[in-house]
Amino acid sequence: MIKILKGHIIHTPTKERFEVHADSYIVVEDEQVVGIYKILPDQYNDQSIIDYGSSIIIPSFIDAHLHAPQYMQMGVGLDLELMDWLNQYTFMLEGRFADVNYAKKVYPHYVDALYEYGTLRSCIFGTIHDEANRYLVHAMKEKGLSGYVGKVNMDRNAPVSLVQTAERSLKETENFIRDFKDDSMVKPIVTPRFAPSCTDELLDGLGRLSVTYHVPVQSHLAENKAEVAWVKTLFPESASYTDVYVKHQLYGPEKTLMAHSIYLDSVEMELAKSAYIYMVHCPNSNMNLSSGIMPVTQFLDEGITVGLGSDIGAGHTLAMQQTITSAIQCSKIRHVLSPKERILSEPEAFHMATKVNGSFFESFGLIGSFETGYQFDALVIKDPSPIMDTLKPVEQLQRFLYCGWTESIQVRYLNGKNI
Amino acid sequence: MIKILKGHIIHTPTKERFEVHADSYIVVEDEQVVGIYKILPDQYNDQSIIDYGSSIIIPSFIDAHLHAPQYMQMGVGLDLELMDWLNQYTFMLEGRFADVNYAKKVYPHYVDALYEYGTLRSCIFGTIHDEANRYLVHAMKEKGLSGYVGKVNMDRNAPVSLVQTAERSLKETENFIRDFKDDSMVKPIVTPRFAPSCTDELLDGLGRLSVTYHVPVQSHLAENKAEVAWVKTLFPESASYTDVYVKHQLYGPEKTLMAHSIYLDSVEMELAKSAYIYMVHCPNSNMNLSSGIMPVTQFLDEGITVGLGSDIGAGHTLAMQQTITSAIQCSKIRHVLSPKERILSEPEAFHMATKVNGSFFESFGLIGSFETGYQFDALVIKDPSPIMDTLKPVEQLQRFLYCGWTESIQVRYLNGKNI
Repeated sequence: MIKILKGHIIHTPTKERFEVHADSYIVVEDEQVVGIYKILPDQYNDQSIIDYGSSIIIPSFIDAHLHAPQYMQMGVGLDLELMDWLNQYTFMLEGRFADVNYAKKVYPHYVDALYEYGTLRSCIFGTIHDEANRYLVHAMKEKGLSGYVGKVNMDRNAPVSLVQTAERSLKETENFIRDFKDDSMVKPIVTPRFAPSCTDELLDGLGRLSVTYHVPVQSHLAENKAEVAWVKTLFPESASYTDVYVKHQLYGPEKTLMAHSIYLDSVEMELAKSAYIYMVHCPNSNMNLSSGIMPVTQFLDEGITVGLGSDIGAGHTLAMQQTITSAIQCSKIRHVLSPKERILSEPEAFHMATKVNGSFFESFGLIGSFETGYQFDALVIKDPSPIMDTLKPVEQLQRFLYCGWTESIQVRYLNGKNI
Repeated sequence: MIKILKGHIIHTPTKERFEVHADSYIVVEDEQVVGIYKILPDQYNDQSIIDYGSSIIIPSFIDAHLHAPQYMQMGVGLDLELMDWLNQYTFMLEGRFADVNYAKKVYPHYVDALYEYGTLRSCIFGTIHDEANRYLVHAMKEKGLSGYVGKVNMDRNAPVSLVQTAERSLKETENFIRDFKDDSMVKPIVTPRFAPSCTDELLDGLGRLSVTYHVPVQSHLAENKAEVAWVKTLFPESASYTDVYVKHQLYGPEKTLMAHSIYLDSVEMELAKSAYIYMVHCPNSNMNLSSGIMPVTQFLDEGITVGLGSDIGAGHTLAMQQTITSAIQCSKIRHVLSPKERILSEPEAFHMATKVNGSFFESFGLIGSFETGYQFDALVIKDPSPIMDTLKPVEQLQRFLYCGWTESIQVRYLNGKNI
């Protein structure tokens, strides 16, 4: 089954630059990209062409870190810092997902929003609640979206209604993994909330599940100075925050997402260079909770893999284009205050939200680019020129990144299908 | 003519806190607020009530700094710094407004957008072109919006197509002032682009026009380090960038808006404390062009009046709610990097975008608050609770500030009229 789309095709096979194919054809066979052509090869002469005119066609967005239940609290209480915000808002809200009917009321809005914003794959924290998490997987699949969904694990340092025994937490996690690990659209991910909410027993069990079932891991790391100090008192035998996860096989050998990772010492920076470790930059969240700002270009230049996350609800928008521009803005502030730090370029930030985040989705295929063999996941973005001036394709992309909204997205493709 | 509106009424008479009147009535007589009441006084018993239910009612937004022609370039070329961005994008675009037909094509989109975003009053830079500026005034009035519009003055250091002789620039400015100074909706403002684009002769003439006609002034100040250094070489006899304006009566005695004002020395900081001087913080612009970040809470705590501006097109959004949250985010970054600087609070930032910016509109009446005697300029913001959880009124406002969009605005009032 061949599909041929025409438009201005833009992607980032490398982070150095936007690869722009103006007025070109992209050929998709079944789910995957065959190639991009300025002149269509003869063999496709009889095929019909879906012509998107002067619209741009870009890889669809991938969000490497967000909390589904927090969709309901976005934008509220952001005058607080992390621990107060968790205690006054987040934990209370998450407790409500004990009732699956609450999940059934709100998760459809959340998956609709992911779809509207063009975030067609994402790495999601659910809650501790098995029924609600299963409903979330169902809602994602109904909407045709792909992702990793994690049952959140906590067995201490949270309200009573949000902690489980390590035994129950592990049992439910294992069942959840078994039931979804072979799903083609939504797969499980091992999700200790963060070190302070887990005992060694729980962390140990989660590490074993990850290794046993070859399931990736997501958690939080070094988001806030007070949190780092707290981890030191909770795990006095660990050399660092990172070391807590390392000890329990939750920092490799499986692919691992570590959200935030702002306050790392030099040993942790070295550990972060492992091929299976992704640091997830969440600029809006980090600004909103006054957590700090990852020195993202320094991380990149040292060879650390850095993905990008909206981190709603501490982040206040699901829009990955706004997360991209916030990441650039943050790096510009770091640059003006400390000129030796360089600015994150537009192609680099776009590359993070597409090909880097996409590479975490290995078990779904090649994701996040339009190179040959990649799953064809794409957004068609309306050309704003009719009421504006004529823009070059890369300027159209710039305008979308800075000013685009859900209505800017004309069509969404996932695995080669218009969804 | 009495109007009575009911809803959750929120405003900031002082910057310290949101004044919240849940489920209350605001009484408007002709154009102005009479009072806010929890229980409606008997004298109004026969009046009909416009009931906005659980929506919040807030003062409409005022933008203290933006460039109308740059609406067409929003989001494009923000990988450049100020001078390159001006030369490669802005000046080229502004040149096109020599043709009033271009203005007629694009300015209607601009004023529509102001309306959609709830920015019902604004302080606008036009271009040097008399016909285009007059059309802009016309378009604003047609849409029912209020503002100051400035004919931009430049007689050096810009492309040939954008400089005029000082004589012509002054003549056109004087005619523009005469024709609109008594208008009730859109008034003129003296607008030297910035010191580097004006000779002493031009600056001197503009200062005289401001004083003669009692017209306020808007310009740019100390946006970027390279610009500050350039001003020093262009005006070697001036003690500082500020001093260039002071010398020419363009820094008082009339009310004066100085956009950016990031790099001020200690003498300039003292001068900034004058009652007629407004420093305009433009956080998105300053981040996007890597200009720097105003230490806004330090300015406030020293008693400097600080307004807020979108500064499109260097800012990438007209949305004042997004400008408010960006200002807060910037102050949080400054705080985490330099903990002695305090964070800008939500009420403070909202106060800047309403009552502080509003106080610049003295010649239009009392603007930017719901205190007795203020012009009733308001936005009714839809309650997001039906699909979300039940939010307190101040949480509804928080959600609007962080996540709101044009569709969140249900109704717009200006001078007591639903527009």
